[in-house]
Amino acid sequence: MPKLKPHTLSGFMELLPAPQQQMERMMAVLRDTYARYGFTPLDTPVIEDAQILLAKGGGETEKQIYRFTKGDSDLALRFDLTVPLAKYVALNYGQLSFPFRRYQIGKVYRGERAQRGRFREFYQADIDVIGDGTLDIVNEAEIPAIIYQTFTRLGLKRFKIRVNNRKILNGFYAMMGLTEKSQDIMRTVDKLDKIGGDKVREILVEDVGLSAETAAEVLRFITIDGDNAAVIAALEGYAGRDELFDTGLNELKTVTRYLADFGVPQDNFAVDLTIARGLDYYTGTVYETTMLDHPEVGSVCSGGRYDNLAEYYTDKQLPGVGISIGLTRLFYVLSEQKLLNPDLPTAPADVLVIPMSEEQQGYAIATATKLRDLGIRTQLYSEKKKFKAKITYAAKLGIPFALFLGGDEEAAGTITYKNLNRGEQNTADFDTAAADIRAELDRLNQGSVILG
Amino acid sequence: MPKLKPHTLSGFMELLPAPQQQMERMMAVLRDTYARYGFTPLDTPVIEDAQILLAKGGGETEKQIYRFTKGDSDLALRFDLTVPLAKYVALNYGQLSFPFRRYQIGKVYRGERAQRGRFREFYQADIDVIGDGTLDIVNEAEIPAIIYQTFTRLGLKRFKIRVNNRKILNGFYAMMGLTEKSQDIMRTVDKLDKIGGDKVREILVEDVGLSAETAAEVLRFITIDGDNAAVIAALEGYAGRDELFDTGLNELKTVTRYLADFGVPQDNFAVDLTIARGLDYYTGTVYETTMLDHPEVGSVCSGGRYDNLAEYYTDKQLPGVGISIGLTRLFYVLSEQKLLNPDLPTAPADVLVIPMSEEQQGYAIATATKLRDLGIRTQLYSEKKKFKAKITYAAKLGIPFALFLGGDEEAAGTITYKNLNRGEQNTADFDTAAADIRAELDRLNQGSVILG
Repeated sequence: MPKLKPHTLSGFMELLPAPQQQMERMMAVLRDTYARYGFTPLDTPVIEDAQILLAKGGGETEKQIYRFTKGDSDLALRFDLTVPLAKYVALNYGQLSFPFRRYQIGKVYRGERAQRGRFREFYQADIDVIGDGTLDIVNEAEIPAIIYQTFTRLGLKRFKIRVNNRKILNGFYAMMGLTEKSQDIMRTVDKLDKIGGDKVREILVEDVGLSAETAAEVLRFITIDGDNAAVIAALEGYAGRDELFDTGLNELKTVTRYLADFGVPQDNFAVDLTIARGLDYYTGTVYETTMLDHPEVGSVCSGGRYDNLAEYYTDKQLPGVGISIGLTRLFYVLSEQKLLNPDLPTAPADVLVIPMSEEQQGYAIATATKLRDLGIRTQLYSEKKKFKAKITYAAKLGIPFALFLGGDEEAAGTITYKNLNRGEQNTADFDTAAADIRAELDRLNQGSVILG
Repeated sequence: MPKLKPHTLSGFMELLPAPQQQMERMMAVLRDTYARYGFTPLDTPVIEDAQILLAKGGGETEKQIYRFTKGDSDLALRFDLTVPLAKYVALNYGQLSFPFRRYQIGKVYRGERAQRGRFREFYQADIDVIGDGTLDIVNEAEIPAIIYQTFTRLGLKRFKIRVNNRKILNGFYAMMGLTEKSQDIMRTVDKLDKIGGDKVREILVEDVGLSAETAAEVLRFITIDGDNAAVIAALEGYAGRDELFDTGLNELKTVTRYLADFGVPQDNFAVDLTIARGLDYYTGTVYETTMLDHPEVGSVCSGGRYDNLAEYYTDKQLPGVGISIGLTRLFYVLSEQKLLNPDLPTAPADVLVIPMSEEQQGYAIATATKLRDLGIRTQLYSEKKKFKAKITYAAKLGIPFALFLGGDEEAAGTITYKNLNRGEQNTADFDTAAADIRAELDRLNQGSVILG
């Protein structure tokens, strides 16, 4: 029979078993962390009515979306998790309690031009808190704590959560009489890190059309830095001139006030007035998160406060705050940068049980059953291969323990077990052996996924 | 602005938060159980090259598949997890170790006619063991143990794993000279439970064209029953007449021999000669699993042994054995039959922390942070609502505990906590309160998802 060459579509991540285990660990940390903050898991369909997904319409989204017909249905694959959330909340409004806190870790689809590190199918890991009519500012103050816990539990140490408030920005531009030019200005100052202050000033004057003094004033404002107290003191100097600015400053003060109570160290947090987030629906606090040793990666967790989640589907005013992690891209970057902890077990099993002859099959099975009852991941190896091939199999997969069960062991009711990493071999009764194996597994599994 | 009516496509399951929590529990049990048996998780793309998915071609599959173009790519959504596995193993053959044991829990897509309880997007939960050239029969013997553990840990008690062997069937039809009619016969006897023996006999004679004696012989054979020993003794009576039959009988004896060692009670297991599984690629042991009190649901976990997983993509002979649970349909049935345990917590949080005034905000946040550090799922409630509205919110979501933190508590460093199920309220220091809450949560969470 002629064979079809097996292949996976380009732009679609499909991992080998060992890296997949690392990905699963990351997802488990995200699920567990989000749950600790009282978010409930949701799982919306991958396919939606194209009209629903494209209600907002326009722009890149429409070009990139996977859209097709089936029968007479106009269908599309979701391109983010926010639009399906908006639909879900509008649809189920009467059955939900607000604030409604949900997380979703799911695949989304964008038919981008294929290039290295860009994916057409990728996981997003989102959390959102949705209010009914109003939503207290404390929800915005809590987000940095969730970001901090998430990355810390993943193992990352050198990262910074950068926070700004759109009301401060919009208020500042209003008091400067620059509201109409604010989009252009924000797009320009967003490049500050990349092109430097002089170049930003030049663009502001020559392309955006600011006077030299105004451009200097804008630059002075957005480069305010220092610790939280210093930044807020500097911002107080602008207070009293614009109502929106003052509201934003108060919100920022609330967000920074409770950081210690939320368990976020000052080192991992900075007010950064250059951050605006491109999306025009953010209206209050905005967040970005950068890896200090890998600034080229950009933000690995971003989001913000918005005033109206579901305006295309309902008259209800549903303000919210949310953040999103581009999990597939993050995993790709961590992997490329060799930042995934290679010491964590990635084998399918903790123990490979090897009967020394067919006569010990029953004893081997009974032993495997007991280990599994203890939660120890156990594979029974019964293929008719040479002993050396069996050990090679365990070693190649990185299985930490091999059990050798022969006639002596069965007669004595003991187990011979070998720590394949250390080369140590022991014979003991089941309980002793299981406790010994358990202790070593606990030691092997205590690291985190990302290398600090 | 005119609003678009929010809706979810028909045939797509989208759960409210409480049932979604139950679904998550089921998935967690599956992941954990499969891992205990040494299966590694895989995650293949939802979209594949249509040529790859349709390599086998023909039949219902081709009609039901979601197929579309993007640019000049001919794409399709996977309709099962087996074809993607075959592609994966053929593609990564050189980097995998065999036997290769993987599980995958993922969504698949079939554009079936929409009807109640039928889904177009649904989860399958599959495990497969793939050998390279050969695969020992013990792998087939292990499958009933995995099925047993899975359903037992989900909470189901009254279920039966029904096992047969295709070699026994094919061998029997060969020794009867009925090989050419065996497909028609198997399709008929498959209806035995529904239409009864007399009707089956009638169809075998009138439609399939057997003589009355042959039809009686077939019926006598496939209705052999009793415990494992009795069935095997009856089958021994046919031994020595057909080589394939004898091989199948030996395999069946191995599968039944180790049941006790694998921890499978006789009560949950039966050899059932009526089971054939429609798919023609099964070649050895086949499995079905039925809920004894809900036979109308049909098999909730099925599969079998096959000789050639990836023949469309590679010359390698890759025999395997696998089973699949139709998770979305199972969840739907359990929910309809009111078999999901309503006593398990489905709230997004274990504890709702309520500061009694804005002055206790910091104390409330610090308390929430400490609870979260202990792994207790904690929501901070900071909306400006009346006290009664806050309690109603907790009660409506089924949050087990509310914490009331006022000036007295902050001054004394204590916590007032109320068990909302029992109406009991206490004030204690943090450690005492947390231990008390933890103990009650452990009690609440000890049940299983499915009611016995």
